[in-house]
Amino acid sequence: MFPHRHLLGIGELQPHEIAFLLDEAEQWVAVNRAATKHDDRLAGLTQINAFFENSTRTLLSFEIAGKRLGADTVNMHVAQSSTKKGETLIDTAKTLNAMRADLIVIRHQSSGAVQLIADKVDCPVLNAGDGRHEHPTQGLLDALTIRRRKGRIAGLVVAICGDILHSRVARSNILALTALAAEVRLIGPPTLLPTAIERMGVTCFTDMDAGLDGADVVMMLRLQNERMDGGFIPSAREYRHFWGLTEQRLARAAPDVLVMHPGPMNRGIEIDSAIADDPAVSAVTEQVEMGVAVRMACLDVLTRRRRGVEGWA
Amino acid sequence: MFPHRHLLGIGELQPHEIAFLLDEAEQWVAVNRAATKHDDRLAGLTQINAFFENSTRTLLSFEIAGKRLGADTVNMHVAQSSTKKGETLIDTAKTLNAMRADLIVIRHQSSGAVQLIADKVDCPVLNAGDGRHEHPTQGLLDALTIRRRKGRIAGLVVAICGDILHSRVARSNILALTALAAEVRLIGPPTLLPTAIERMGVTCFTDMDAGLDGADVVMMLRLQNERMDGGFIPSAREYRHFWGLTEQRLARAAPDVLVMHPGPMNRGIEIDSAIADDPAVSAVTEQVEMGVAVRMACLDVLTRRRRGVEGWA
Amino acid sequence: MFPHRHLLGIGELQPHEIAFLLDEAEQWVAVNRAATKHDDRLAGLTQINAFFENSTRTLLSFEIAGKRLGADTVNMHVAQSSTKKGETLIDTAKTLNAMRADLIVIRHQSSGAVQLIADKVDCPVLNAGDGRHEHPTQGLLDALTIRRRKGRIAGLVVAICGDILHSRVARSNILALTALAAEVRLIGPPTLLPTAIERMGVTCFTDMDAGLDGADVVMMLRLQNERMDGGFIPSAREYRHFWGLTEQRLARAAPDVLVMHPGPMNRGIEIDSAIADDPAVSAVTEQVEMGVAVRMACLDVLTRRRRGVEGWA
Repeated sequence: MFPHRHLLGIGELQPHEIAFLLDEAEQWVAVNRAATKHDDRLAGLTQINAFFENSTRTLLSFEIAGKRLGADTVNMHVAQSSTKKGETLIDTAKTLNAMRADLIVIRHQSSGAVQLIADKVDCPVLNAGDGRHEHPTQGLLDALTIRRRKGRIAGLVVAICGDILHSRVARSNILALTALAAEVRLIGPPTLLPTAIERMGVTCFTDMDAGLDGADVVMMLRLQNERMDGGFIPSAREYRHFWGLTEQRLARAAPDVLVMHPGPMNRGIEIDSAIADDPAVSAVTEQVEMGVAVRMACLDVLTRRRRGVEGWA
Repeated sequence: MFPHRHLLGIGELQPHEIAFLLDEAEQWVAVNRAATKHDDRLAGLTQINAFFENSTRTLLSFEIAGKRLGADTVNMHVAQSSTKKGETLIDTAKTLNAMRADLIVIRHQSSGAVQLIADKVDCPVLNAGDGRHEHPTQGLLDALTIRRRKGRIAGLVVAICGDILHSRVARSNILALTALAAEVRLIGPPTLLPTAIERMGVTCFTDMDAGLDGADVVMMLRLQNERMDGGFIPSAREYRHFWGLTEQRLARAAPDVLVMHPGPMNRGIEIDSAIADDPAVSAVTEQVEMGVAVRMACLDVLTRRRRGVEGWA
Repeated sequence: MFPHRHLLGIGELQPHEIAFLLDEAEQWVAVNRAATKHDDRLAGLTQINAFFENSTRTLLSFEIAGKRLGADTVNMHVAQSSTKKGETLIDTAKTLNAMRADLIVIRHQSSGAVQLIADKVDCPVLNAGDGRHEHPTQGLLDALTIRRRKGRIAGLVVAICGDILHSRVARSNILALTALAAEVRLIGPPTLLPTAIERMGVTCFTDMDAGLDGADVVMMLRLQNERMDGGFIPSAREYRHFWGLTEQRLARAAPDVLVMHPGPMNRGIEIDSAIADDPAVSAVTEQVEMGVAVRMACLDVLTRRRRGVEGWA
């Protein structure tokens, strides 16, 4: 059902494997909504969250996911890390492995770092975001959110808007949504659209109104502060003028459009509060909720062989 | 018995509700003194400690309290927080809520922040200190310490000394102690006594000897380093001369006076070591011990409805 | 069998007590290699890791050790510590004690700090490294690694190379290995060899080739970056030339020589990658593995009285 040792990217998954992880996540949505939510299937397993890049939400989400499944979760803090002492990434990987980690969750600023670590350890590695490469659990949680709100993914028109070039969120979403047969459009300033991205099976728009036309789902990306210095876009104000999601602009989309954002949002820049706070339209908090469920599913599935779950030998 | 969803301040509690929490805390004092101290009543609940202001003691105390009750406790670290990326406090609250937190413990530098978060989430919120407003578990632990050492609170003369103006500890203590019928005196330099504070049912003194006269309990407040720069007080040396607790000055208080300090102490500034280290007089370490017990009581009581405890539906 | 309340240094242990801890650690090596590795003997105990000096590996190792034994482990983060507010170390010790810690693990930059804390608390204290004094669990894990790879320690020639002067790792290893009857040689530049160190029962060499001659074990120490500024050694390049472990130089040692390093390694400075990465020669990752096992043994043994284990009253 799921032959992979690691979860490094959506790009390595077959459509039915993506669907399998989404199906598995559904049970955890229900568990998390219950009054108490403990499960012990990861008891006796050590999950190390090694975040080389700061992240509150994703780290919290993985930590909560592991604890709800009964794992011993420990965080390796970057500020205290041996990597500051000049240790190579491979030595860090070997160290975590020698401590007999059963699951390693990694976020790293370099695109190949997670693969490098996965090659050196004996346990499953989950990519929690590496450089501009992938952020697979984000792709999965967004797909789960859409599937629950729309009842399907195939055939939907999904517009992803903003800084596509630097976004691993966009990349994992493009891979997941095209695999699940959605029609994906990318909208952004020419400087922030990767060259030849159309090869991924998407259509590009530099005019936002045109790109939103009839869209069933609009995914806004976060504008990184460091992009607002004039190198890629003239100013935050001008960005909002051309690429910000306003109610007026959203009227171009389908009447029952769903709006998404991976958070944290720059309100009044890439998205207006009137949209973000409208529960009929916005799925922003539901995305966060699905994030914990999807991560629980991944932690569970990836350790089944190790735990000797029947049928997973 | 305890109709409140949150614990945001002592100001919202009735005297019998304060007494109820103190009564509940007694059992945890006993548990914590046992050789092993595990209780599983919060198993399956997720406690998020969101500290926007640094604090070792209070964070440790809440974390230990939660773990001893079996909760899954996770800390949201400020340095890694999305709030650094410009996220609004309300968005942070919605995120923690979407992760299906069962308890949120918050410390924040702004006075209204904890209320703002409580309004946006579905689970109990505990205020671990917000701006100059309140620090309710400190008020409770101090009341518990006094009650255990003196056998009662009603009728005692309690002198609170130091920087009343900026102190949420003072504020929560004034509210708790006057509710429990102690006679509360405030002692401090005129610049550090809030105007019209007498409306809270207290008496103010700018002469320390007069304020200490016959006091049963003396609570010293920490002099924040940032106040020592001349804006509010001339110098640390002069502060000690007028407002520091020395043995000579303490002789003015009742013969069996109890001395308290919320810690960390500036020894030789607001309090002399000879007093702080005399176990017959000082309750400083007992306050820390009561802190864990009081927090366990609050975490337990506030989740009873959620856990379906009989009589709490 | 083990009469000590604390583990502050190898220097206070009898040879049979060191051997006892190594024997105890063996069971945890096996447990850690199992698919699931949970043991509940420390359930209901609170382990506080108070690291006043940054350390990823040692903190992670102690945290994992405690969690695998079922303890409630909490980390006191330096950056958030009251010691930044000017609290004395003794007040911090009293605070942790008042929270009813059952185990305190401390790393501190000052040599006497751990002893000072141990004197003030009611629970076992484990030294995780204090100044230039000792790092006893490192001494134990290195001894365990040697014993497992060589089948014995007595009679082996062990060469410890590098910055002996500033190294608590060297000090704990000298004490452990001489106690277990190894022949210990120290190799390093004259500026980094402590005066009169021969009184510890070791032989000193400033010529690396001579010191390595026939050695059964070579322990390389990490060259701290702050030593590379010219005060103690001329430059990293010159250090490597005289004191770096190269394959050519290692040929002087015994044919079945074992090479060790406490990590993190400066590859190409004190040790060459060809040696560090050769599993037949290098025990570097095994040292990390033994670290978790040794710490589990220490946490277990030191809490036996407290837990009322039979024969330990």
